[in-house]
Amino acid sequence: MNTKDNLCDFILFGGHGDLAFRKLMPALFHLCKDKYLASDSRIITVSRRDMNNFQHIELVKEKLIEFLPKKSFTEEDFDRFKKKLHIVTIDFCTNEGYDKLKEILDEHPERDRVNYLSTSPNYFGGICKFLSHNKLITENSRVVLEKPLGRDLESSQAINKTVLKYFEEDQIYRIDHYLGKDTVQNIMALRFSNRLFVHLWSSNHIDHVQITVAESVGAEGRWGYYDEYGAMRDMIQNHLLQLLCLIAMEPPCSLDANDIRDEKVKVLKTLRPISPHEIATKTVRAQYTAGSSMGESVPGYLDGDIKESNTETYAAVRVDIDNWRWNGVPFYIRSGKRMQKRNSEVVIQFKTMPHSIFEKNNHSPLVDNKLVIKLQPEESIELRLMNKIPGLSETMQLQEVNLELNAPHTHKRKSDAYERLILDVIRANATLFMRLDEVEAAWRWADPILEGWEQNLVPMKRYTAGTDGPTAAVQMIAHDGRSWNDD
Amino acid sequence: MNTKDNLCDFILFGGHGDLAFRKLMPALFHLCKDKYLASDSRIITVSRRDMNNFQHIELVKEKLIEFLPKKSFTEEDFDRFKKKLHIVTIDFCTNEGYDKLKEILDEHPERDRVNYLSTSPNYFGGICKFLSHNKLITENSRVVLEKPLGRDLESSQAINKTVLKYFEEDQIYRIDHYLGKDTVQNIMALRFSNRLFVHLWSSNHIDHVQITVAESVGAEGRWGYYDEYGAMRDMIQNHLLQLLCLIAMEPPCSLDANDIRDEKVKVLKTLRPISPHEIATKTVRAQYTAGSSMGESVPGYLDGDIKESNTETYAAVRVDIDNWRWNGVPFYIRSGKRMQKRNSEVVIQFKTMPHSIFEKNNHSPLVDNKLVIKLQPEESIELRLMNKIPGLSETMQLQEVNLELNAPHTHKRKSDAYERLILDVIRANATLFMRLDEVEAAWRWADPILEGWEQNLVPMKRYTAGTDGPTAAVQMIAHDGRSWNDD
Repeated sequence: MNTKDNLCDFILFGGHGDLAFRKLMPALFHLCKDKYLASDSRIITVSRRDMNNFQHIELVKEKLIEFLPKKSFTEEDFDRFKKKLHIVTIDFCTNEGYDKLKEILDEHPERDRVNYLSTSPNYFGGICKFLSHNKLITENSRVVLEKPLGRDLESSQAINKTVLKYFEEDQIYRIDHYLGKDTVQNIMALRFSNRLFVHLWSSNHIDHVQITVAESVGAEGRWGYYDEYGAMRDMIQNHLLQLLCLIAMEPPCSLDANDIRDEKVKVLKTLRPISPHEIATKTVRAQYTAGSSMGESVPGYLDGDIKESNTETYAAVRVDIDNWRWNGVPFYIRSGKRMQKRNSEVVIQFKTMPHSIFEKNNHSPLVDNKLVIKLQPEESIELRLMNKIPGLSETMQLQEVNLELNAPHTHKRKSDAYERLILDVIRANATLFMRLDEVEAAWRWADPILEGWEQNLVPMKRYTAGTDGPTAAVQMIAHDGRSWNDD
Repeated sequence: MNTKDNLCDFILFGGHGDLAFRKLMPALFHLCKDKYLASDSRIITVSRRDMNNFQHIELVKEKLIEFLPKKSFTEEDFDRFKKKLHIVTIDFCTNEGYDKLKEILDEHPERDRVNYLSTSPNYFGGICKFLSHNKLITENSRVVLEKPLGRDLESSQAINKTVLKYFEEDQIYRIDHYLGKDTVQNIMALRFSNRLFVHLWSSNHIDHVQITVAESVGAEGRWGYYDEYGAMRDMIQNHLLQLLCLIAMEPPCSLDANDIRDEKVKVLKTLRPISPHEIATKTVRAQYTAGSSMGESVPGYLDGDIKESNTETYAAVRVDIDNWRWNGVPFYIRSGKRMQKRNSEVVIQFKTMPHSIFEKNNHSPLVDNKLVIKLQPEESIELRLMNKIPGLSETMQLQEVNLELNAPHTHKRKSDAYERLILDVIRANATLFMRLDEVEAAWRWADPILEGWEQNLVPMKRYTAGTDGPTAAVQMIAHDGRSWNDD
């Protein structure tokens, strides 16, 4: 690989925050170790904490040792990595300190600059403004925005409008870390490089699709933040709809970022709006109550200081796509906290065989083919087919087999989603980032649901922590004669 | 499993022959060991060799030890097996000795009787006649016929007519050991229990099919026999056409023997006849010359005592099927002796993707999907798809992956084709045996080719022993813009 092109100054705002230490620094460390970063590249942490470079390096080291897998950290690698590390103390929303940042960056005025805003969106405007005032935004600058990008279309537009005052749309990288997973990219590879899938991928052969993002953790620790958003804003409007787009989109003209995003936004624009009169049958919202998780008693969502909230910790929605390919194929999507187990998956359920010649004599009835894409806790893509059980039994006995479509990672360590995404920003490849029109189209679909919930058109259900969610979600899909995947 | 129903007297004509010792006795031993045979069942060897039961049992034991895998033979199992063994000395074509057989069989007049004729077809008539004269054929009798069933339609009809004087068609089991392989039955399971395959299985998605049966051995040792038949009669007319039927047949009404065979015979009847004016472009025949096989020098086909022969040791044919499903999809079939390696396989080659979005940036161009069914030396069914090579490379890199569709045999020993087939005869299940109309339809297609060859409308090519066959076969398929599978 050629790392000359990956020369950049990587400016990490909020670089002493939780995400930075848990995910971003480890990703940068791995990219450096695996020689994906040009050796002159710099990683400039911008933090409100006042410390010198030596203290910063010690802190980064301590956190890397804490968050990296044991085998990944070596002193030798860190010695190379630490040469890239710089710190600048800035209170994001005053001009103070930006001169020090300028001093560093102006050493290489032509160099690509990646401004990674790992801060609350409240600071996005201030950071962009002072970067601009100090002439730190060049045509080689890019800015990475972490979610949440607003609570609804209006607030999202406000955030984006602010950033767009200082950056062009093609300099803005809105990150959704789900898209950085290798398996998610394999969805595109499989869909568009195999005749087998190209021709099966429509309402002719697919019965329905399920997308699940289940977390076993609760809201504790970040209750205040979470309660402002809830499952719809925190998960469904972004992660789940992005996965839905990759499954549902038409073949793009090419793999260029805008060709792919053109197709994704078409999906988002054709999501059937959920009207007030069907919101109660097509959506479910719920909060968890006290229960047990991983063998330990855990409090309910409202067992803390605040006893009342209209924020859902679980949401399920039946999504219909009004286009030619997906007519009559519902996408059932759901996400919840404090579920029985951590499990993110997409299930593409093929239609039932029109006829079976095996049923009559068979103790194991036919199971319909499906494609199961697992993202958490482990990544895999399983094609479930039927085959013959080997042996001499008198009538042919069938069984379901799982074929793994992800290539094995052999000797190589599996890279984290953030490594992929950070590297793509450095390479100025926006394919896996959300374009403005995508974000807005997603909010346009989500807003009426959030409004209906606000108006209590849908009752807030309860579910016990550590279970599979509210029975209302089971009823919703059962109403269509289907059931959630539970294997 | 219930072995009460598998009670029978198994009468093995030619029971001291090569096939009997190499395949049939080991299969019966395994069936006994695995308790698929009712314990009172008897295995009555009919041989022209005069020996007593004690000598016979010693001989069987010696041969089992020679031909069974080492782990399979135990004294304990043999002690149970030997109680089933009987011998009767009969010179097949005189009445002498049949009285002794009658004496044994009449101990259980109601019992199912399987007459396995592991002899030259020259004896079929005589054996059936004397069985009949001695009233040894009951309504519970069945007869198993080993190939070759004739050299052409006429001689085949003569053999069948003779047997049909004494047995009803539904008592006749014409064996093709290729059909006993578990993988061959899995073709039916996969085709008819998976929506994925049901809808891909036609000229809409399949470009062509290849069937190869390559042997590394030559004709030595059985030159006299082989020279009477050749590759077309010995392999293509039976084994290869049977495999072709399983790939090409329409879904049967049910898994009942006659429903499946109805569909197979429909395929055979719709094979496009090869006319004299296209025989030279659609068929290839050849004989091997001296070369080297597995590192050793081996003689050519005509390097023995007889220096002239019009018998092919290699044949390749382009087969077209004149029905709705397969219009425009050629089946290329080939079989040869003294090939580079032993290899029997069916390749279902799917059509090229209509368009690729990966080619532009990709060093690894798309490979079309295919299904590769391997029967020798090992059995497997591989679905070849493309997926993403894991990792952080800038443009998406694809690779071909092989998915194994056969279920692993886990802890269980893999049973031999003859075990399956013998057990099916005992169970009176004729699914995997050729019905009269199948045999005749296959000859009706083969005869004009054999006649054209007889008239030298197609030159007899040569190929060096230990190679992939004559270049004419490569040219034949290249003429259609395709090539033989060589992975």
